[in-house]
This record gives sequence, C-alpha cells and structure tokens, in this order.
Amino acid sequence: MELHEIAAHLEAKEDTIIMGLIERAQYGRNREAYDRPAKGFKTNKTLFWQRMALLEAVDVQFGRFEMPEEVPFTQVHSLPLRINPIRPALPVSKYHHINLTKQIANNYFTLLDQLCATDFDGHLGSSVEADVHVLRHLSERIHYGAFYVAQKKYDEQPETYRSLIDRDDQSSIEQLLTRPEKEEEIIRRVDEKARSFQQGVNLDVRKAVDPGLIVEFYRHSVIPLTKLGEVRYLIAR
Amino acid sequence: MELHEIAAHLEAKEDTIIMGLIERAQYGRNREAYDRPAKGFKTNKTLFWQRMALLEAVDVQFGRFEMPEEVPFTQVHSLPLRINPIRPALPVSKYHHINLTKQIANNYFTLLDQLCATDFDGHLGSSVEADVHVLRHLSERIHYGAFYVAQKKYDEQPETYRSLIDRDDQSSIEQLLTRPEKEEEIIRRVDEKARSFQQGVNLDVRKAVDPGLIVEFYRHSVIPLTKLGEVRYLIAR
Repeated sequence: MELHEIAAHLEAKEDTIIMGLIERAQYGRNREAYDRPAKGFKTNKTLFWQRMALLEAVDVQFGRFEMPEEVPFTQVHSLPLRINPIRPALPVSKYHHINLTKQIANNYFTLLDQLCATDFDGHLGSSVEADVHVLRHLSERIHYGAFYVAQKKYDEQPETYRSLIDRDDQSSIEQLLTRPEKEEEIIRRVDEKARSFQQGVNLDVRKAVDPGLIVEFYRHSVIPLTKLGEVRYLIAR
Repeated sequence: MELHEIAAHLEAKEDTIIMGLIERAQYGRNREAYDRPAKGFKTNKTLFWQRMALLEAVDVQFGRFEMPEEVPFTQVHSLPLRINPIRPALPVSKYHHINLTKQIANNYFTLLDQLCATDFDGHLGSSVEADVHVLRHLSERIHYGAFYVAQKKYDEQPETYRSLIDRDDQSSIEQLLTRPEKEEEIIRRVDEKARSFQQGVNLDVRKAVDPGLIVEFYRHSVIPLTKLGEVRYLIAR
C-alpha cells in the first residue's frame, strides 16, 4: 500500500464527512441532548452519549473495533461475535495506545455552535443520530491518517524517525512529517466540495452551511488532530 | 401545515437519500451479508437483518417509532424510554395499518445489483451500515409522503375522497391524487442533485454513480411506493 493510496482513502472520506456535517446542520443545536442526563433513561449520560454507548455496544458485536482506525468513543465491554474479514492493508503496531476520540468529540461540539442555524428545534433524536454518523467517519479519517500515514512515512525514513523518537523530540517529528503543500491541497478540495454539494440548494427547504466553517474545521481540527495522532503513533511504536 | 411545506420536507430528504445511495455505492454488493445467516451471531438472520434488528431495538428506546413516519423494518418488542418531544405537525389517523418497509427493502436490494460496481470487497459491515442509514431515510420519505400528503389532499376534497373510499375505488383514488407535473419536477431535481453531488468526483478515489440509476429508482420505486402508501392510508382512515 502506497502513500498515495492512503491519501486516496482519506480524500474519499472527505465527501462523507462534509455531507454528514451538512446533514447535521439541518437540525438545531439542541443543547439539552448534550448538557444534561437523558430523560427517560436510567443513566447520568446525556442523550448523545447514551446513544453512542448503546450503538457501540451493538457495533462491538459486529467486529467494528477490530480495525485499527475504528476507535470506540465509549467503554466497550463485550467481545466481537464475528471475525472482520478485512485485514489492515499495512501492518501498524501499538495503535491501541492512541485514542483521540475525546478531542474529536470536543472539537466537533464546538463546531456545532456555529454549524447549527437554530438553537433548539426539538429534533434531539435526529441530531444525535446525525452526530454519531459524522463523528465515526471523522474519527476513522483521523485515526486512519494517524496510523497509516505515519507508518508509511516511518518506513521511508526509518533511521531519521528512529533517532527523533529515541530523543522524544516530538516537535521535530511533527516538522518532519508535515507537508504544507498537501495540507493546502486538502483545504482547497474541502472548500470546493462544500460548495458543490450545496450547489443550487433550495434555501426554502434546506439549511445552507458556510463552506468556510468546514474549511476552518479541517484546518484547525481535522488536520492538526491527524498530525497529533501521527506523532503519538510514532512515539508509541 | 400546508402542502408546500410537506413537499419541502420531502425535497430536503432527497439530498440525504441521494448522498446515502452514493455512499453505499462505495462498497461492493457483498451478497453474503444478505443471503445467508450472519457468521458468529446465534441467529438465522442475515448480517443486514441482524444489524437492522439490533439497531431498531436501540432506537425504540429513544422513541423513534413514536413518529408516524418512522416505521420499523423489524419486529420491535420493548417500549420507548423517552417521550419524543416532537409531535406530528398534521394529525394523521390509523397510519399504524400501513407499513411499506418490506417493499422498500426489496426494491432497494434490487437497486444494489446495479448500484454497486464490484461484487465483493469484504466490507460487509460498512455495507450494511450504509444500508441501514439510507433505508431509514427512504422509508421516512415514503411514509411521510404517504401519510401527510394524503391527509392534506383528503382535507382539501373530503367529499370526493370519501365517496371513492366508501366504494373502495383504489384506482380512482390514485388517479385523483396523482400530480404528473409534480412527479416530473421531482425527477428533474433528483437528476440535477445526483449530478451536482458528484461534480468533479475523483474517480481514482471515489466510485461514481450513474445519475440515471437514482432517477429510475425514484421513478419506479420511491414515487409509486409513496402513492401506494397514500392510497392505503386513505382506504384505512
């Protein structure tokens, strides 16, 4: 598996993430799904976290978390019932030590403040359903990038990385793996997609999303978290 | 709630459905997720139906099926834990007698034969996850249309509809509620959206979907099933 194939997977994932964010923006911010215990359930969890926990309890049975890039957002207790037939294309090691889901969720919730046009519309269930969908794809994108891109870059310059890892020189590792021109290419692409997916949107029936919001989310959250994951992965391996 | 507001909801739903179909097309047809018992699970259900059943068992707790247009695909046994704060905007009655999920699922599986570019890619879990997502939105679109559009049309001409209902004259009811120019407008819009959502798609990293497939699915499945639902709703009420 070549670096450009890994990049292609990340590029394809962009569509899903951007569409998912636009989908979530159709509902209100609906804070009560995130800042108080879910009504009706015997739990202290919010409606969002209750949904995430129950869905991950289902997903663990399906073997979702057998893939390195699928990192659970909640504590999952049971074991998979089926063997996931897909094996990772590139061997990655000690990836279990890296879990960026907390940061991903926090950054996403901050984005929601700007993404949602209305404060409250009562569609709590639809809101958290849309959240779970987009967060999983976001997390898969970030962890996939962190593990496979970093592993590939390491394989290309093992001595250089090894010496930085041995000195725990995280900022030099980050510098070495940063490709500013690649980042700008991603930003440009995300901007174009956020525009073309909403081309001719009927504002009477759909809420439009400012493409700049999604671009800034990529710039200040998706890309930096992927790089943070890459550094952590290299330090851990 | 006016007819044009109901139509606006259906129009907004198109985006989600089209995006969902494009998303599903990224994976192979993966027949073994649909034509044999799921490996690992102690069930005779296929992987698809096992996933649907487990997710609906979660969703019933969240009150999803308290909304008329949210019709379960599987038998759900438990009761909702929370009260859904959203009430239907228009009163509809006896909608519980109408359930088109079997036909929706069958038509969708037939579409998959053409939608998926590859027969098998091993991504069974991702395939059925994408299925559940798009099927729910499809079903919501069809049942929402069936109940609310039919109720509204009935309210506008109650005597005419009443006499046809009393004679069980289903074909005249269908004729009376059919708006060919509206159907053509939907078809045109779906075609445009299926194109613009894939504008500039990088075929090295994403599988493209022929917009004609989605258009034909609307023409021969979504629209007729909605009309069938409308007729059944009127007969039942």
